[in-house]
Amino acid sequence: MNSLLALLLVALTVNVNAVDLLEATERNCSLSPPYLPSTAVNSSLQLQELREQMLSSNLLAYIIPGTDAHLSEYISPRDARLAFMTGFTGSAGTAVVTPGKAVLWTDSRYWVQAERQLDCNWDLQKDVYISSIAEWLISEVPQGGQIGFDPFLFSLKTQEDYKMSLESSNRSLMSMPGNLVDRVWKDRPAISPESLIRLPDRVIQRSWQAKVKEIRNQMKDNPYKPTALLLSALDETAWLFNMRGNDIPYNPFFYSYTLLTMDEIWLFLHKERVTEELEVYLNASCTGPFCVQLKSYDVILDDLKEYVNSRPGIKVWIGVEYTNYALYEVIKTEDKFTTSSYSPVMITKAVKDDTEQRILRDAHLRDAVAVIQLLMWLEKVVPEGKETELSASAYVNHCRSKQNDNKGPSFETISASGPNAALAHYSPTAETNRKLTVDEMYLVDSGGQYLDGTTDITRTVHWGTPTALQKEAFTRVLIGNIEISRTVFPSGTRGVNMEMLGRRALWEVGLNYGHGTGHGVGNYFGVHEWPVGFQGNNIPFREGMFTSIEPGYYKESDFGIRIEDIAVVVPFQTKYGHNYLTFDTVSMVPYDRKLIDTSLLSPAQLQWLNKYYETIRKLMGPELDRQGLNEEKIWMLKHTEPFADSGSSSSVSPSSLTLAILAMLYSFAL
Amino acid sequence: MNSLLALLLVALTVNVNAVDLLEATERNCSLSPPYLPSTAVNSSLQLQELREQMLSSNLLAYIIPGTDAHLSEYISPRDARLAFMTGFTGSAGTAVVTPGKAVLWTDSRYWVQAERQLDCNWDLQKDVYISSIAEWLISEVPQGGQIGFDPFLFSLKTQEDYKMSLESSNRSLMSMPGNLVDRVWKDRPAISPESLIRLPDRVIQRSWQAKVKEIRNQMKDNPYKPTALLLSALDETAWLFNMRGNDIPYNPFFYSYTLLTMDEIWLFLHKERVTEELEVYLNASCTGPFCVQLKSYDVILDDLKEYVNSRPGIKVWIGVEYTNYALYEVIKTEDKFTTSSYSPVMITKAVKDDTEQRILRDAHLRDAVAVIQLLMWLEKVVPEGKETELSASAYVNHCRSKQNDNKGPSFETISASGPNAALAHYSPTAETNRKLTVDEMYLVDSGGQYLDGTTDITRTVHWGTPTALQKEAFTRVLIGNIEISRTVFPSGTRGVNMEMLGRRALWEVGLNYGHGTGHGVGNYFGVHEWPVGFQGNNIPFREGMFTSIEPGYYKESDFGIRIEDIAVVVPFQTKYGHNYLTFDTVSMVPYDRKLIDTSLLSPAQLQWLNKYYETIRKLMGPELDRQGLNEEKIWMLKHTEPFADSGSSSSVSPSSLTLAILAMLYSFAL
Repeated sequence: MNSLLALLLVALTVNVNAVDLLEATERNCSLSPPYLPSTAVNSSLQLQELREQMLSSNLLAYIIPGTDAHLSEYISPRDARLAFMTGFTGSAGTAVVTPGKAVLWTDSRYWVQAERQLDCNWDLQKDVYISSIAEWLISEVPQGGQIGFDPFLFSLKTQEDYKMSLESSNRSLMSMPGNLVDRVWKDRPAISPESLIRLPDRVIQRSWQAKVKEIRNQMKDNPYKPTALLLSALDETAWLFNMRGNDIPYNPFFYSYTLLTMDEIWLFLHKERVTEELEVYLNASCTGPFCVQLKSYDVILDDLKEYVNSRPGIKVWIGVEYTNYALYEVIKTEDKFTTSSYSPVMITKAVKDDTEQRILRDAHLRDAVAVIQLLMWLEKVVPEGKETELSASAYVNHCRSKQNDNKGPSFETISASGPNAALAHYSPTAETNRKLTVDEMYLVDSGGQYLDGTTDITRTVHWGTPTALQKEAFTRVLIGNIEISRTVFPSGTRGVNMEMLGRRALWEVGLNYGHGTGHGVGNYFGVHEWPVGFQGNNIPFREGMFTSIEPGYYKESDFGIRIEDIAVVVPFQTKYGHNYLTFDTVSMVPYDRKLIDTSLLSPAQLQWLNKYYETIRKLMGPELDRQGLNEEKIWMLKHTEPFADSGSSSSVSPSSLTLAILAMLYSFAL
Repeated sequence: MNSLLALLLVALTVNVNAVDLLEATERNCSLSPPYLPSTAVNSSLQLQELREQMLSSNLLAYIIPGTDAHLSEYISPRDARLAFMTGFTGSAGTAVVTPGKAVLWTDSRYWVQAERQLDCNWDLQKDVYISSIAEWLISEVPQGGQIGFDPFLFSLKTQEDYKMSLESSNRSLMSMPGNLVDRVWKDRPAISPESLIRLPDRVIQRSWQAKVKEIRNQMKDNPYKPTALLLSALDETAWLFNMRGNDIPYNPFFYSYTLLTMDEIWLFLHKERVTEELEVYLNASCTGPFCVQLKSYDVILDDLKEYVNSRPGIKVWIGVEYTNYALYEVIKTEDKFTTSSYSPVMITKAVKDDTEQRILRDAHLRDAVAVIQLLMWLEKVVPEGKETELSASAYVNHCRSKQNDNKGPSFETISASGPNAALAHYSPTAETNRKLTVDEMYLVDSGGQYLDGTTDITRTVHWGTPTALQKEAFTRVLIGNIEISRTVFPSGTRGVNMEMLGRRALWEVGLNYGHGTGHGVGNYFGVHEWPVGFQGNNIPFREGMFTSIEPGYYKESDFGIRIEDIAVVVPFQTKYGHNYLTFDTVSMVPYDRKLIDTSLLSPAQLQWLNKYYETIRKLMGPELDRQGLNEEKIWMLKHTEPFADSGSSSSVSPSSLTLAILAMLYSFAL
């Protein structure tokens, strides 16, 4: 917050009634004494201790990123250093501490959350550009001062960006292995002792040996002739060996690195978590080209150094986006080989094989049952006035848990009513929990982990009468979803060059949203499986990739809308050309029809919507039958009635009897 | 060409009649002896001499870029080293010569042209990625070998890309001032002796002093506190001082650099070309903050070195995209300051001030008169069968020359009939010149330089009966143009994120085009004025920027379609939001209505088209009146009849009398 704004806030708040202040959910550091909500975390002690560490290391600033040594988006509690230091638990942010100041940088999704969780030791900076952080460092750290960072928590790109921004400023950027936060974090959580697992054969097409062969072939074909491939991202190693763990909440990953050469495989992990059965599976008792040599997670740096130094002519292939700077540093320049951005495992993993496609589609059918159950239940119980964001969240988790092969939610459910939904990534807590009513819009963004797939879906509903703006905004968000979904594009088109289709109908009336438009998903993997998606650093779309499509609109302190589906990239037969693709939506839950103003839809958009609803009926009818869920089936049929071609929003509501007959017909016919 | 393809071509061509071969326009190096068209250039002598130079410099490869020391897109004949060495005259390409091989890399626009101009000393590589060139270098140059380049012809980014790609390969990249091609180029053209000019006051809003002040303010506000700004691109210096020259055909630039500090201005140019009047204008006889110290063009490297070395605490601000590596090299790391991509002059220049906007719009009105005259004339004379691509090109140049303030064409006119138009950037020559007939489509891409503005417009017409594919493709290209033009977007949206709107209607049926979708234009400046446009490295759109919008479609050996208009970014008042923009087309020439299938247009697209035609009538009616061009006005009115709302392509053709009356009405009413 800049000082002029702070002054204005003081001027505005001096007359405010004390009762109002007591109820405010956000901190107000311009009052004296400052106002802190109950959600704020006292950070004084850890700051003091960190500053002592900085002093003894001769640092005038210390950078604390929000990631782990694998540059993961979601992290284990033991890596939540940013949250430990600041109180802020959002999934993106960077903190910097100097002797006199402490600042957090985060993006618009998290500004309100930060104001609720930070105490007044911390300033909030509302962007996430390294150039801004560097600018701030230059203004705060005197010339000649040292700025420290943990090289395990920086990607090569992050380090380069800081270096580039700071290099001519006469401040030195110090790579300091041995994290300073860890030194003051007394009750830092330990590593999970649970055994790792291998995926069952029924969800696998390619054995780990087949994958190793495939990747080695790519190494062979590479003109730079790499002798080794270093895998740092957690899903790279998990994918290669068809293994899973539980080190990160909601993400079935385990701490690991892999160094793959043409004739050896070194797998770095916590060896005590490898069962005898797994050792056999990995062929771990030999050293040949298809034997996995198990090594301790902690020796990666030493072993990599030894590999690099003891052998002549080696060349290590790394993907710069997911390799931390500590590993990069130990490989000497002439031996290093930096590929564009991602390792060949990342690129190969992005395209799902036939089995992965089939089972991921299937997981979405079962997942849709749970979401349909939630929406049907809410429609019934919300008017009774007893349900809340938290109870809805618990309900959908419960529904998912009853589905085959469910392994829990794939992320913390976003269950948000009214103004809470205006925070795009809000999750309810006891303090913020809101009652669900017919007077507010409700947004639920949730997903499940299944042995065969990971799901992620958002629906926004209204149980009463939406305002004209709510209906218009919802319809324009839906148009965005439809426009991306139905677009035809040449294979290899980048998502970032198409994502404006998700925004265009909103832009037309001056609306927009402040987050990305989609991300890859995996097979029992991270719910954000990069590098597939619509961001600038995502790779071009190819047949067989899965991505979310999720435009939205958020009106501060009022309501939030997001419509999110998962779609798979499929071939499209065009009139004249070859190698064209489009999306096929695999999420199978209807939208709230009372929020759709069909007069805003073009004929092509309406046709897409009706065809999608027809597909839901065709696929979910038999699935709901199989699970014996007749009430759900009637609900599904009612909500997938085709829309009339006219401009008016359909309010056709066939009698329950008709629906029951329809339900029967769908059981037999399909 | 890879060897498998070469073999296939041999297999395919052995039975070809010798007469066919004699008529072939492209070389065939797989025959023995090789077949060369008359357009091919014998490069044996210059290659032999260059290789001698390489040998004495101990180089195993030499890289020859197509640019000059200012990284210009269009270059002076004296900088056409690539053309001298290879014979290839396209505007983009890189050549590499080794002791045994010679290879040219260029993009799809130029593949056919290259096959016509290269002899069989040269291989053609069909892409332009530095990574591909580096890959080739690694495969051809043995380990330990030296690869040379002229640092004046590499941008920092180019040098970094080569370095990154080669760094772990054990081949060294040698920066070698003193160009090897120049040493063997005996009749290299000299520098133009013509005096430079200043722009007249009537086309200027900001004096050079005002611009210097504006840029110094940006230097002051910059957190990195630069002490100097180095301007390397030719249009940067020309813009700053409101000066022009004639060193590059079609581009009114002059060789120059500027070093701007807070209290001095160093202008590097050929001093003998500065008149006494200009010296007064530039205040060249003093050394204060608003005195321009004239220095010889050739001492830039020495003077920059001296500035950097003789003063403590200096920091030079450079835009990395347009600063050559030779200059970058002499600035020491701790003194260097690299901004993101472009200098503040580039960014400031991109937004036209009120005067620039007004006069650039006005230049487009006069320019439209010339294009209307061409199209009207062709409609009349082509059926007589005597006109050719070259005569049409001469005609439009002549029409432009009659317009006020015209300074000649802004680039070599692309006048292309039938299959010639399938080469997106073809210009006719005596050898390739084609007769214009009612049986072929015709594409004309041309532009003018005017003291007040630079224009660039493409129209595609058919004087007979187009095929169904021609009509469909034309309409879909037009839809692309309309969709970009009418889209509403938040200020700061990047062109690259919207340009798919220009392709989407084509993609739908499997068609596409292989070039960019638009580029900035200036006020009596380069016809491609970067960094405005729709490419990945272009800056976000802001109010007051001008860009071309130019989707196309090219059917090899058959026909080519491109529709290009210039549009200015203007504010758009949306229902809910602020700071939204859209495009306002300033090119004022109707499209060939017989090629438009209105049944493919949405109501919104048809509405845009009719509104555009209404604007043409409103603005061109008075302009044609002013010039006393009544026949042209009747032609314009006939071709801007509103399209009916129905699906059928309008073929309404009002009688000449009605049009004459309409013409009169437009004279008085508007």
